[in-house]
Amino acid sequence: MIDSLISKIKATSNPTVVGLDPRLDFVPSHIKEEAFDLYGKTLEGASKAFLAFNKAIIDATYDLIPAVKPQVAMYEQYGSVGMQAYIDSIAYAKSKGLVIIGDIKRSDIASTATSYSDGHIGRVEIEGEKIEVYKEDFVTLNPYLGYDSIAPYMNNCTQYDKGMFVLVKTSNPNSGEVQDILVGEKGERLYEYMGRLVAKWGEEVMGNEGYSRIGAVVGATHKEQGIRLRALMPKTYFLVPGYGAQGATASDLAGCFNKDGLGAIVNSSRGIIAAYTLKAYKENFTEKEFAQAARQAVIDMREDLGKCFK
Amino acid sequence: MIDSLISKIKATSNPTVVGLDPRLDFVPSHIKEEAFDLYGKTLEGASKAFLAFNKAIIDATYDLIPAVKPQVAMYEQYGSVGMQAYIDSIAYAKSKGLVIIGDIKRSDIASTATSYSDGHIGRVEIEGEKIEVYKEDFVTLNPYLGYDSIAPYMNNCTQYDKGMFVLVKTSNPNSGEVQDILVGEKGERLYEYMGRLVAKWGEEVMGNEGYSRIGAVVGATHKEQGIRLRALMPKTYFLVPGYGAQGATASDLAGCFNKDGLGAIVNSSRGIIAAYTLKAYKENFTEKEFAQAARQAVIDMREDLGKCFK
Repeated sequence: MIDSLISKIKATSNPTVVGLDPRLDFVPSHIKEEAFDLYGKTLEGASKAFLAFNKAIIDATYDLIPAVKPQVAMYEQYGSVGMQAYIDSIAYAKSKGLVIIGDIKRSDIASTATSYSDGHIGRVEIEGEKIEVYKEDFVTLNPYLGYDSIAPYMNNCTQYDKGMFVLVKTSNPNSGEVQDILVGEKGERLYEYMGRLVAKWGEEVMGNEGYSRIGAVVGATHKEQGIRLRALMPKTYFLVPGYGAQGATASDLAGCFNKDGLGAIVNSSRGIIAAYTLKAYKENFTEKEFAQAARQAVIDMREDLGKCFK
Repeated sequence: MIDSLISKIKATSNPTVVGLDPRLDFVPSHIKEEAFDLYGKTLEGASKAFLAFNKAIIDATYDLIPAVKPQVAMYEQYGSVGMQAYIDSIAYAKSKGLVIIGDIKRSDIASTATSYSDGHIGRVEIEGEKIEVYKEDFVTLNPYLGYDSIAPYMNNCTQYDKGMFVLVKTSNPNSGEVQDILVGEKGERLYEYMGRLVAKWGEEVMGNEGYSRIGAVVGATHKEQGIRLRALMPKTYFLVPGYGAQGATASDLAGCFNKDGLGAIVNSSRGIIAAYTLKAYKENFTEKEFAQAARQAVIDMREDLGKCFK
């Protein structure tokens, strides 16, 4: 799947992943009203509003982008009906040919990780029948538990051509409190140690295009650290959050790419899906034109990211 | 809620938490058959079998224990119907007066963590209406992202009297690959650094019984490390996994308790809920008597843990 992702990035000339992280705050009123009319102001109403919103965003952007990244928390918070909206959003994005990165950031011991892995990127078995449940192509994972918490995903990666992105350096303001502490005797930081570890794990599951099926999450908000990790992990694809709403610019994340223009895929969530609420787009797009605003934001982001290779 | 947990531990004289981590492998045939007859050999059939199994385990043990810990992965793997079984299992356990520890091990940046926190231990807001969704009393969390990934749970902890257990030292074989590395200049290990951090965060949300609303996960499989963390974090309650099926004994985890017999709650999952399949119980209990076997396993575990205080 890392090979498919790379080929889609080349085909669209665009390393942008659209983060499907809806919030009721910016789902347009006409979508909410329609869902609430049918399902009430309930968990189900909110979930159906998210699904309708996502479909419109996907319809308006799928030809320009390689992948979408739904953030499961947005759906999980609404219980089982929310999880169904997550699953339905994934199915819809897949029907449009998009690669799906499930932003789940799970972490657990091997026996439990096997259940997450089977449900999200493998198959669960019920009385001999193998069933595909969530159908993501990639998932994000947290490495604090070490190798045996990651290994159960590696089996499904090779068996079903899937992939993962493991947290190395996250984009949030306090990430340094843990990830930047000095470790070992060589004056290395924890995120560097993790980076080396993730690169080592990745050697077991290399794809055909020179990159591993195990990628890394490397926040765009840390310019120098991105450059450092790029050097440490040349065969690891980076999923880069933090662009746009979290404050990072194209120049901040340029170092996350390799010289061939590959090696990183950059996420933007609110900057695209809520573009119509932002100053840059408000004047040209109404609330009802939210999907067209998202399309324009993708075009603008593609152009902005193009600066990384000049 | 940490105060309620402590009062229930005192009332039952039992620091045992029953891990509700069902697997189809050990759900008795008669329960599976009934569910599959009604719902087919489907995700829904499997989920309903889990719920029926959990109810029987809860009925047979609730008067002896303070808390249950459902592992969300077991349910999440079956999609939205699985999540509904997780929610329904929690509701049933609460109706029997049990404290609920949702083993979710989530980790994300603040804006996303807020959604997890609101869904699991707070309230989600839909058009001004506040809705309680999962209704756990505690959740487990992964601290790799630092303070701002934990803070959104602290708000709900104080507002709704909830709590959390943050991973410090996990019970799995490879936990040392990350958690035991040397950090800083004082020859400290990462799990010790994390322990100090978690204890510091916990000072902001102290309960009335001398313990914080922020507890720590400390694996029973690491005897010396439990002792070390107990000394570093005297006001932090420990959730201790690894007893039984993962190999730890009462003597391994004795150091996780404070001298007053408080300070730790010990989880057993398969050792209780699948007791009828184990050598120690097989002779005395048939498959249909799985719930009675679980009850006996709880009684035996309570007695075994009693050795910690002698």
